[in-house]
Parts: sequence; C-alpha cells; structure tokens
Amino acid sequence: MTTLRAGLHDAIGELARFNSAPELGGITREVHTPEYVMAREFVASRMAAHGLQTRVDAVGNLIGTLEGAQPALPRVVTGSHIDTTLNAGRYDGVVGVLGGVEAVARLAAGPRPRRTIEVIAFAGEEPRFGMGCLGSRLMNGRLCRADLDKLHDANGITLASALREVGLEPDRAGEARVPSGDVHAVVELHVEQGGFLESEGVRLGVVTRIAAAHDLRITINGRAVHSGATPMHLRQDALAGAAEATLSVERLARESSSGTTVGTVGVLTPFPGAVNVVPGAATMIVDIRDSDKDARQRVIDAFQQELGEICSRRGLTVSVEVIQDNQPSACHPLVIDAARESCREAGETYLEMASGAYHDCMSFAPEVPIGMIFVPSAGGISHAPDEFTAPEDIDLGVEILSATLDRLAN
Amino acid sequence: MTTLRAGLHDAIGELARFNSAPELGGITREVHTPEYVMAREFVASRMAAHGLQTRVDAVGNLIGTLEGAQPALPRVVTGSHIDTTLNAGRYDGVVGVLGGVEAVARLAAGPRPRRTIEVIAFAGEEPRFGMGCLGSRLMNGRLCRADLDKLHDANGITLASALREVGLEPDRAGEARVPSGDVHAVVELHVEQGGFLESEGVRLGVVTRIAAAHDLRITINGRAVHSGATPMHLRQDALAGAAEATLSVERLARESSSGTTVGTVGVLTPFPGAVNVVPGAATMIVDIRDSDKDARQRVIDAFQQELGEICSRRGLTVSVEVIQDNQPSACHPLVIDAARESCREAGETYLEMASGAYHDCMSFAPEVPIGMIFVPSAGGISHAPDEFTAPEDIDLGVEILSATLDRLAN
Repeated sequence: MTTLRAGLHDAIGELARFNSAPELGGITREVHTPEYVMAREFVASRMAAHGLQTRVDAVGNLIGTLEGAQPALPRVVTGSHIDTTLNAGRYDGVVGVLGGVEAVARLAAGPRPRRTIEVIAFAGEEPRFGMGCLGSRLMNGRLCRADLDKLHDANGITLASALREVGLEPDRAGEARVPSGDVHAVVELHVEQGGFLESEGVRLGVVTRIAAAHDLRITINGRAVHSGATPMHLRQDALAGAAEATLSVERLARESSSGTTVGTVGVLTPFPGAVNVVPGAATMIVDIRDSDKDARQRVIDAFQQELGEICSRRGLTVSVEVIQDNQPSACHPLVIDAARESCREAGETYLEMASGAYHDCMSFAPEVPIGMIFVPSAGGISHAPDEFTAPEDIDLGVEILSATLDRLAN
Repeated sequence: MTTLRAGLHDAIGELARFNSAPELGGITREVHTPEYVMAREFVASRMAAHGLQTRVDAVGNLIGTLEGAQPALPRVVTGSHIDTTLNAGRYDGVVGVLGGVEAVARLAAGPRPRRTIEVIAFAGEEPRFGMGCLGSRLMNGRLCRADLDKLHDANGITLASALREVGLEPDRAGEARVPSGDVHAVVELHVEQGGFLESEGVRLGVVTRIAAAHDLRITINGRAVHSGATPMHLRQDALAGAAEATLSVERLARESSSGTTVGTVGVLTPFPGAVNVVPGAATMIVDIRDSDKDARQRVIDAFQQELGEICSRRGLTVSVEVIQDNQPSACHPLVIDAARESCREAGETYLEMASGAYHDCMSFAPEVPIGMIFVPSAGGISHAPDEFTAPEDIDLGVEILSATLDRLAN
C-alpha cells in the first residue's frame, strides 16, 4: 500500500484493488457492496490526508470539505463517483473524485478561497438499481424515501435494504437533501468515455450540454415449446421478437435526425434459456440517449410503435416499464466560462462538446449552474477493462479543474 | 406418498415432486443432480415392485430386467429418460419409463416372453452438458472416456466430475457399453411434443424417422464501450450481431426446401450484461434439426455463411464450435410393423410420422432396429410447465407398447 500522500496515479491504482470480480479482468465495484465501502474509506482517508474534513451522509455520499473564508456563502462542489458498472475500468468517475481531491488540495496550499469547496464521491452513479446518479439525485430531492423501496438490483435487492446492509438508515435519507440555494456551482472532471477528443488530437473538453438516458425494461411473452417438435409456423418465439426489437433500436438511433442519438440493448435474457426450448419469454433493457430531447423522443416513440408491431405480428405480448427518463441538461455559462478561462490562461487548446454519458452534476441542474471538464479516453473506450487515460492528461485535467474551482470560489 | 404399486398416473405425479426449481412453476430435474438421483431411486423401487430386477450401470443408466425364457437370445429394450430440461413438464421421457415399466409388468403377469426385456431410464437425454442422449450414447459406444472430461454444463462442471459427484466412476464408463448384437430391437414410447396428432384427432403415432439436431455454440466478440458516449457508427456491438444471427436462423429454417427444418436460438447471453455498456461479447447456441439430412445441411451451410457476413460487416469476430451433429435416423420395419400390427389388433387408428425431437433409441441405430410410439401432447406443448398428455392417451400408449414388446420378444 502506498502512503495516502502518494501521487494521484498511485492512488488510482490503489483504488482499483477494491474489486468484487477481478477474475473477469476488469473492475466491478457496485455501490453499497463491501468492496465499495472499503473503497470509500480509502478515499476518505486520502481526503483527510489532504486536509479536508470528511463525512458520509445518510445515503452514502462521501463529502470532503475545504472550508472557505466566508463559509456562509453558497459553496462550490466538485467530485464524481467511485462505483463502477460490471467489469469496468479504473478511470470512469475515479478521476473526478481523486483528481478533485488533488485539485482542492492545491487550493488549500494557497490563500484560503472565499467560498467553501466540497469534493463529493456520489454514491451510485452507475445503474446497479436500474437508475443512475442515485446519490446526487437524493442530495437534490430528485428521489424520495418511497423510491428506495421500489428501486431494486438484478437480484431483487432494494436500494433501501442495500443501504441498511452497509449500516445506513434509509428512513433518514431526507437528511442528505441539500437546498439548491446552498450551492453556488458544480464542476465535474471526468474522462470523456468516447473518442472525440482523441480523434481531434485535443486534450481538454469543456462540456456545454449533457445527454440523458431514457431506459425501458421490456418483457416479451410468447410460448415455451420444444425446439425440435414445433414447426416454425407454430412458434411464438419471445427471443426472436427481442432480437428484432434490438435491431429496431439500433436502426432508429442510427437514422435519428439529430445525428447524436444513441440506442443500446445491453441486457437481454431469454427464458428458460435451454438449447432445446423455444424461448417462452425474454426480458431486455433498452437505453436511448441524446442531448437533443425532441430527437430522442421521436426515437422512443418510433421504437415503441415498432415494438408493438413486432410483437403483434409474432403473436407475442409485451409490457414496457420506464426505468428512468432523465432530461438532457445544458451546462451553465458561469461554469463554462470559468473552465474556458482556465484553459486559455494555461495556454491549452480545448474543444466545446456535448457529453453522451450522464453524470452526477446533472442532478443539480437547472437550479444550480453546472459544468464539466473532459480529458481523453484512449480509443474512446469506457465501461470496459481496457479503459485508459494517460497520466499527463489526468494531471492537465486536475490543473484546469483546480483553476476553475479557484475562479468559482473567489 | 402413494404406494409403489399405485397406478401409473399417481406415479407420474409422484415423480414430478423431485424438482430442483419448483418456484419457476415447472419441473427442473437435470441429470446427475441430487433430485435426479432421488427420482431414479423412486423409479427403481417401482420397477422392483413390478417384478423387475434392477441395476444402475457405470454411467447412471437405470436398467429394469424381465428375464426371458431364452435369456441367451438378443434382448428387447424399451424405456426413455427421467431427466428434464429447465422448467419443463412432467411427461417428456417419464411416460416412456414409467409407462415402459407398466407395459412390461403386464407381460410379466402372463406367460414368460421368449426374449429378455429391459426397461431403461437413460441418464441424460436432455442437454445439461450441451449434448443430448448421453446415457444411451455411452451404452452404444458413441462417446468415450475422454469425452467425459470435455463435455461440461453451463457452470463449467464436466460430465466426469458430475458422475463422481453422484458416486459413479467415470473411469469405468466403458463397462456400460452394450454390444449391438446383444439387442434385438428398441421401441420407445414418448409424448409427441408437437401438435400433429392433436390437430389430426388421432391418439397414436408410429414413428418412421427421427430428426436430429446440429447444435452450434457461437461466440461473437466486438468491443465493450460506453452506451452513452459512443456514437452508433463507432460501435462493434456483439449483441446486435447475435440478434441478426438469431433472425437469420429463423428465416433460413422457415425457407428451407424440405418444409420440415426447424432452427432455434434458445440460449443467448450478452457480456457484460449492463444497461450502460454496449455488449463487447455475446454467446449463443443454435439448434437446427430436420429428418431430411440434406435440407438440414443446406440450412447449416447458409447460416454459417450469413453469420460470417453479419460479423464481417459489423467488425465483429466470431468462433463456432459444433456441440453435437446427430444423424437423422430411420426407424426399422421390424419395429414399425410390430407397432402397426399392435394398433390394428387393438382397433386403433394411428398416423405414421416423423419425430422432430431426438430420442434415446436413436443411439442404437442403425445397427439395432429401432422404433417409437407417440401419444398426443395437448396444444403441441412440451419442454414447458403446461406440458400435458391425457391419462387415457397414456394408457392407450402403454397398451400398444406392451403388445409391441410382446411381438418383438416372442
């Protein structure tokens, strides 16, 4: 174990050791698991070693505070998340949390900033419980106590019981709520997770808007019959219907008028899942995103219509549940300008761009000004074991974040 | 618990209680599980109660013997299987085993048949280990010792270790081998598992040929990337490729010149299986069957070509492993005639038909004359919880089986 004052890149490597499925080759650290709690404690120790006051709120958000010279003023927030999706990489979210600690530590070494600055590791940005950004949503009153019993993971564990499992009290979730008037601005440093910066040969992105996900859980029911004894024309094959719907999502996203819509089926399960049984049921999760809300809605509507036609033609029944329907967010000129200025002052080129992924800062909008700084993802890869961002790019991102926080806090 | 001399239909109900996943609504009793061993012991007790000598061979086949007046003559075999696929029904295989015991018990009550008759519960007709008909294949030298280490189930457990787990010795598998000269004929009673008899309003089928499965395990590799941040044109989505391949199987089977080809994808798994990750890999099992071997081969060839084209167009790599490649079997006039005669003598109408499903008797062909008797499946449903065959149809099947065995043994 390196010391807690060791460099940022060593710390990123240390954090990668908290992994519940190392045998898959990547990192799996879902929120509110034992590995997650250990990782959060590691980050808390590192915050403390860098001079921040730390606390964990009622829903598991870790907050590291550098008190400002005028603590009554609305504060400035940075941070991201340290939970991962399944078999993921080591940079997504982590760069914004450990890099955020580093950026604030630099300010702590100089004259005390006017406003208080917080670095937050938001609990549950990845959708273990179907919906993403749980910690930041709860902090902003986008979810209420009742939702904690409704949201559940793939094993049927509710968010409420997962919170209890790690010693938190779901009934006190309301205490995590932060009135929007208390926050002056939010700026989040993140790896791009796409290939735009790399392909343009630019090391910094200033985000102007954030796409948001519309996720549907779809259950298709047909008839489970013998795969050898049932002629093709007598089948109601739920998986074949799901396969057609998967291709429909792909085609509609590709043909979307905005040019920025993406549509994905990442989860698809046939039942009973035996080689010699025509699937009698299939479940799938469809994820459709765009920073252009109208274009996204047209794709969702067209997909729902095609899904109905596919199932009707095949004699299948279908039910659709909306898991999340986030609104695309615009970043705020206050934060965009602070980030631009910081880039210019450092003599660095940057690109203005949209984020295809959603991020925790989104939960604060539109009441609170938000913004993001991106650093490149090698090969555009993220949510995979070979996710990589060069250390010097992370260092540059931290430098710009620190300067941006300085502007926002003073 | 009903007594072991209780009626056949009560016994079918009793056997259905050995179930490792009752919560799914159907019956899951995969071979070489604790539930399977208990079920086999129940059948052995019932065989003994009906006057048969019982033994379990080296690979778990249960054999009940009624010794003939001339035991040196090649013997007559009947039987089927008592293992199930996932979440299945209570009649598939079971009717041929418990009905076989019943049919032989009737002969035992009369003058001793000239030839010895065996009722066998073949161990592993359903493809827990990818390939079906394991017990009957091993009995006929279609598999060897080395295969026991190669075949594995969905959890990676090899057939050899599964055998050890239930107290059998894979190194003694060769002892289960029965020279084909020892067997005079095999006749298997089975539920149709399709809807032909029901739609024709006929209660008996005499099978003239058996379709056989060609099964492929396919692994498609693409690139796992972020589902929000990766534009559609930069994706190599393994699941979208698998979805296209699934529809290709369906279309090619439908268009097959024989009119009897069936093609099914029952198993399909995307990796990592997260809502916000474009699948970087997908595995699927494709099952293609026909009693017309040439037509089947044309579908297999066309599918392999389309699969290659789909993956190449999408920038995916693909590997294909043949899990089983069974040959369609013709039933033998000796057994067909004995079954026909038995129907006529009973004054019963029957239909000659092909079997779309494969069955254990197939493992004895072509060296040993084989044949089958079918009884109707309500709604053509099988491999599903609502599989049903009317008790009076089962009774009729047992009567015809008994008369057919009588002809073959005398």
